[in-house]
Amino acid sequence: MIEQSAFPVEPWCVRETHLDLDLLAQSESVFALSNGHIGLRGNLDEGEPHGIAGTYLNSFYEQSPLPYAEAGYGYPESGQTVINVTNGKLIRLLVDDEPLDVRYGQLRAHERVLDLRAGTLTRTVEWVSPAQRRIRLHSTRLVSFPQRAVAAIEYVVDVLDGPARLIVQSELVANEAGPAHRGDPWAAAVLEHPLVAMEQDVGTGGAILLHRTRVSGLQMAAGMEHLVEAPGRVDVATRASEDWARTTFVCQVQPGQRIRVVKLLAYGGSSMRSQPALRDQVAGALTGASYSGFAGLLREQRDYLDAFWDSADVQVDGDPEVQQAVRFGLFHVLQAGARAERRGIPAKGLTGPGYDGHTFWDTEAYVLPVLSYTLPGATADALRWRHSTLDLARQRAQTLGLHGAAFPWRTIRGQECSGYWPAGTAAFHINADIAAAVEQYRVVSGDETLEIEGGLELLVETARLWVSLGHHDQDGRWHIVGVTGPDEYTAVVADNVFTNLAAAHNLRVAAAAVDRHPELGRGLGVDVDEAAAWRAAADAVHVPYDEGLRVHAQCEGFTRLPEWNFTADQKYPLLLHAPYFDLYRKQVVKQADLEMAMWWFGDEFSPVDKARNVDYYERRTVRDSSLSACIQAVLAAEVGHLELAHDYAYEAALIDLGDLHHDSRDGLHIASLAGAWIALVAGFAGLRQCGPALAFDPQLPVGITRLRFTVRWRGLRLGVDVGPRQVTYTVGDGAEATLDLRHAGEDVTVTAREPVTRQLDKRTPLLPRPPQPPGREPARRGATLRPHPSSGG
Amino acid sequence: MIEQSAFPVEPWCVRETHLDLDLLAQSESVFALSNGHIGLRGNLDEGEPHGIAGTYLNSFYEQSPLPYAEAGYGYPESGQTVINVTNGKLIRLLVDDEPLDVRYGQLRAHERVLDLRAGTLTRTVEWVSPAQRRIRLHSTRLVSFPQRAVAAIEYVVDVLDGPARLIVQSELVANEAGPAHRGDPWAAAVLEHPLVAMEQDVGTGGAILLHRTRVSGLQMAAGMEHLVEAPGRVDVATRASEDWARTTFVCQVQPGQRIRVVKLLAYGGSSMRSQPALRDQVAGALTGASYSGFAGLLREQRDYLDAFWDSADVQVDGDPEVQQAVRFGLFHVLQAGARAERRGIPAKGLTGPGYDGHTFWDTEAYVLPVLSYTLPGATADALRWRHSTLDLARQRAQTLGLHGAAFPWRTIRGQECSGYWPAGTAAFHINADIAAAVEQYRVVSGDETLEIEGGLELLVETARLWVSLGHHDQDGRWHIVGVTGPDEYTAVVADNVFTNLAAAHNLRVAAAAVDRHPELGRGLGVDVDEAAAWRAAADAVHVPYDEGLRVHAQCEGFTRLPEWNFTADQKYPLLLHAPYFDLYRKQVVKQADLEMAMWWFGDEFSPVDKARNVDYYERRTVRDSSLSACIQAVLAAEVGHLELAHDYAYEAALIDLGDLHHDSRDGLHIASLAGAWIALVAGFAGLRQCGPALAFDPQLPVGITRLRFTVRWRGLRLGVDVGPRQVTYTVGDGAEATLDLRHAGEDVTVTAREPVTRQLDKRTPLLPRPPQPPGREPARRGATLRPHPSSGG
Repeated sequence: MIEQSAFPVEPWCVRETHLDLDLLAQSESVFALSNGHIGLRGNLDEGEPHGIAGTYLNSFYEQSPLPYAEAGYGYPESGQTVINVTNGKLIRLLVDDEPLDVRYGQLRAHERVLDLRAGTLTRTVEWVSPAQRRIRLHSTRLVSFPQRAVAAIEYVVDVLDGPARLIVQSELVANEAGPAHRGDPWAAAVLEHPLVAMEQDVGTGGAILLHRTRVSGLQMAAGMEHLVEAPGRVDVATRASEDWARTTFVCQVQPGQRIRVVKLLAYGGSSMRSQPALRDQVAGALTGASYSGFAGLLREQRDYLDAFWDSADVQVDGDPEVQQAVRFGLFHVLQAGARAERRGIPAKGLTGPGYDGHTFWDTEAYVLPVLSYTLPGATADALRWRHSTLDLARQRAQTLGLHGAAFPWRTIRGQECSGYWPAGTAAFHINADIAAAVEQYRVVSGDETLEIEGGLELLVETARLWVSLGHHDQDGRWHIVGVTGPDEYTAVVADNVFTNLAAAHNLRVAAAAVDRHPELGRGLGVDVDEAAAWRAAADAVHVPYDEGLRVHAQCEGFTRLPEWNFTADQKYPLLLHAPYFDLYRKQVVKQADLEMAMWWFGDEFSPVDKARNVDYYERRTVRDSSLSACIQAVLAAEVGHLELAHDYAYEAALIDLGDLHHDSRDGLHIASLAGAWIALVAGFAGLRQCGPALAFDPQLPVGITRLRFTVRWRGLRLGVDVGPRQVTYTVGDGAEATLDLRHAGEDVTVTAREPVTRQLDKRTPLLPRPPQPPGREPARRGATLRPHPSSGG
Repeated sequence: MIEQSAFPVEPWCVRETHLDLDLLAQSESVFALSNGHIGLRGNLDEGEPHGIAGTYLNSFYEQSPLPYAEAGYGYPESGQTVINVTNGKLIRLLVDDEPLDVRYGQLRAHERVLDLRAGTLTRTVEWVSPAQRRIRLHSTRLVSFPQRAVAAIEYVVDVLDGPARLIVQSELVANEAGPAHRGDPWAAAVLEHPLVAMEQDVGTGGAILLHRTRVSGLQMAAGMEHLVEAPGRVDVATRASEDWARTTFVCQVQPGQRIRVVKLLAYGGSSMRSQPALRDQVAGALTGASYSGFAGLLREQRDYLDAFWDSADVQVDGDPEVQQAVRFGLFHVLQAGARAERRGIPAKGLTGPGYDGHTFWDTEAYVLPVLSYTLPGATADALRWRHSTLDLARQRAQTLGLHGAAFPWRTIRGQECSGYWPAGTAAFHINADIAAAVEQYRVVSGDETLEIEGGLELLVETARLWVSLGHHDQDGRWHIVGVTGPDEYTAVVADNVFTNLAAAHNLRVAAAAVDRHPELGRGLGVDVDEAAAWRAAADAVHVPYDEGLRVHAQCEGFTRLPEWNFTADQKYPLLLHAPYFDLYRKQVVKQADLEMAMWWFGDEFSPVDKARNVDYYERRTVRDSSLSACIQAVLAAEVGHLELAHDYAYEAALIDLGDLHHDSRDGLHIASLAGAWIALVAGFAGLRQCGPALAFDPQLPVGITRLRFTVRWRGLRLGVDVGPRQVTYTVGDGAEATLDLRHAGEDVTVTAREPVTRQLDKRTPLLPRPPQPPGREPARRGATLRPHPSSGG
């Protein structure tokens, strides 16, 4: 675990003040740069030591057989694994022929800073070579948001004492040796030597390497060009072989002088374009980057981020750690989604090899809700990617004996890659999650283009899936059996509440969308009877409720299962210490499931239901998934456990800065980082999107004195400023802007001229703060921020 | 599929009158010889062509990693696969240097006969070599029952026309090339070159080869010695290399003359004994066989079988095919179990590589019930094997977080080898099946030795498992959730009726056994409270019943699941055409499950229950398992559908002679072959073991005019002779023998002096004959035996 002191608390930076080689892999994830298309882990410039060397291109994967001890019909036969592509961030330095290596010589200082406004990773090293030559290295790395194919590194070496011959070797390296990750179910499979050389295009000051994958048939190109500034003579030469290219700069530098090398990088990958087209694309990108120059790239980057933060920033007064963490989280959500552009947004973005680089429901259920309110175009892009895989989802449904489309639980390209169906294929809610994201995008953005250009088809095909999955009983109630909800410790069940309500929502919004676009609906073969059947199923959906306990059963029979016998020394995550067999048959919950249902479909539950359900499920939820804390924060806040919500918000936000799940080395938890925003905005500000309405119901915990943020709503930017006693809503765009919202149940109209302020009544919980399973109590965040947590008010 | 005409109907033989190379693999299984320790597939003497070359030693296996696309806690890491050991049945013949190969020259005649009384496989070949030399080969092969380590082949060649030089090469061959079985979930994994040579002991007329496995650390020896008779000069020489040994006989034979070679084979395998000990053991076995001579071996074999048939034969008048098939079945049950002696009895015996050579619940639930009534010592041996694996089962329970012992779903040595837990580990009923077999053996044999020497421990440790698996609800009812019953199309369910009743039975018999042996019970740590808890759980066991439909629910909620949508062109088995996900969530049943419960625990169901349940489940049972038909026969007979029972009995009995499941090539279905006996004896004679009582309630279908059989009961042999209108019970052992039984609810005492005859009332079904799923109607056996099935009475 990363100690909290590893990163000092600063509002706009994540700073590492000394290098801890034991935490190298974690810091590489934290310091990863990406624009959603290119991802560079925060590996040291000189490549080693490293935790996990990683350079990624979105959706650039290799395919390999999925093995089964006992095979079964419909099991996916091949998996897809994101591969470590050509490493272009490598720059080695020799000082009088001694290689800069932090493990040798003396490391006098080492600082890395991720600047969330500049969009750069800077590194400052003061190093004394084994031969006692002292230098300072300052490097600045960026992956450009505006220029999608481009990354750049400014590499400056100052010689601090006697004269030195400096040799800078800037490289492209394909097929780097990878780590071995055996035995860890959460770590990615590692494919050895995935790239086959196709072509090398070598100039004096740069090179382009072209490779392809063996099985998946993808081609890629990586190119580098350089600018160099140094006193006196600099010799430059470039050599290349199949799997590497190296541009070498050599110069003699006097004390107080420096060499500055700017490395421009460009990447391209494709399954369809020709080798020459790919080579020229990368050459073109290098030319464009060169035209901007490094200063220009920095400026564009800041402009891009200024615009993002202007409509996405969340200000948290009173809890500087959460302040830092939520910005860190938003920055990485942006990095994951900004320029993915019709590719998936993987669960770990492009920050590491975890989960094989797969995209899960995390995208639609956690990341897109944030992007829809902050960068809606990225949501539309991500859903257009889903739409581009619709044919594969239709085939999958057919294989499974179902109608419509069955989207994969985990995938890179669109094919199902889940090798354990009870926690994969059976988690059909992914389809309703996609539908919900389509609908939410339409409502929040006000843009109907997506719906017309594929969204409707997504809604219709997922609705068809649900109708073929569900059935009416003798009494007419509509059930869905044999599926798995969000909680992966309870699988293959009947009538999971979240799934049932999400399916009903899917059916309703599909029917409504067909009403809005009757012509398109007819084109998809939807007739009146079909839409009526959707509405009928939705209206008859069964929601299990335990009359005796007066709580909802997460699924049929759940509340009658045996309880988990938590021992004092219970080890977590449970799945590493207990068989699925035992987890499935007990009342133990991996992650928010019914709470997810109560967040998304809050109108289906009374306030008393919510309070009682939170009380019941909190005691049984072990949060072995990083997807849980943020949702628990939202519900805890809603039912009045504001300090508990604060604890959970902290956990969601700090997941990677604190390495709370001990696996940040494999990549960041993008959904939980998005969850920090969800915990604050949906939790403490109470944001809900209820049908066509935007609603808030703010209430701060004691430890947060003020919460300010902006959300986009139908082209407008709504500012929300929450204090302990009042909230103010403002509209920021244009003098005539008007925005209707609901505040604590009251309809309110905000105009640009007239901000609206409302006093907040103190929310009193119906029940006392519930306990969690032993060892799974969240860190008492509130308690650290004030001496007497129980005395606040 | 094997056409019915492939094997003419004869009462005591299975005869193949011509060689069909397309059915070679199936016939190799049908003609396999085994004594439970050594197994020789019915490969042709000359080794090729072959379907699957197979020579097996019980429990001689190799270990290999079990792969998982997504691993989980408690998944078995390695599997065990029976291996094809050194082939000693190989005898090649050269006629004037042309090898005898049925694919070349002219095959004038080819007959193979499995003689069920002699215990031999004979083969007669008339062959004309490509050079037109005509010979007749007659070989007789046996695997000795009395001499466990010994097999023998008599190989006689007659030259029918001009003189010929005959060369007979008798071999031992290790690491034969095996078949590739990819893509078939039912076919065994094949391990290449599993044997590592250790030593070769070569004499003039024979050799011993010693090998070991690489990973599992087992050692084996195979030896051969020969006797030869031929006119004139015979040269004999033996050579050997690491993986082969060859004894060559050469002679010149005139028309009308013959060469006769007797090959004596011996096998030994061990995980513990030393290499010299193993070598000497095999040498000793060869000496013993040599002392008997081939004629002696034949005589001993027949004596052994005469004794077996004397107390095990079933005579079926009216249906000669079933007559033949039930004897064939009993013969293979005997071959599988006779001399297994503290090894498992695999699902396919030692007849083929199917299911990797694993032992399943088939043993305790299908094979041992037959052996307990016919060869009880074999039952005791098999259960002593289970007991020898108790420590592994205790470890498994601990791994799973349970108490007591959790026996493996599939194994060779005792470790769980199931790679898909919902249809493996979750099928905990295996433990109750073992307990039931222990109890049944005690009651049927009257022998308490097994109980004292391990049986009690099996009962206690399995009882402890159930208590840790089950739980009492608020109302005190006892439930078992999250387990899989016999029906593998319905998995990981709550309160499977069979499992619950079997667990309750296990708990009760364990408590009673502790009462019988209080001292032993205390030694196992059982106190009064523990036994009381067992009884309390058993008495409170929950049995789901659907009040609306007035049928038992196979498991909680089963009758409310969606129905399977059977199409007109439905393909079977369903598991090759539909995902588990869909099978599990629908009312479709792979194999008898509730019917199994009604057979074993008939007292828990009223006659009306049984009739209604049979009617309900028959419509939903697809018999995709070979374990189903015989149980369906028993219940169909009980509720009065005697013709349907006959159809099922036929299906169970003919499973391999007719290759009804299209996989007899991989080995025989020993449980279904035992099931032929079950269908006849438990079905038409109505044999039940109800607590301490032996009960009958006979009733024949129209197509069977008389059914006679013997069962062993507490050291006595009871003869049962059922006709259409009456039954006669006789006791065969000693003048003073007395046997109490229950006939159709009436207590009856049979003595050696006084057979008891009772008239039979015609059984009238409460409901009409139920239909089966489309395409799964059993062949109408009754209809083939008489012109107007509806007019019989």
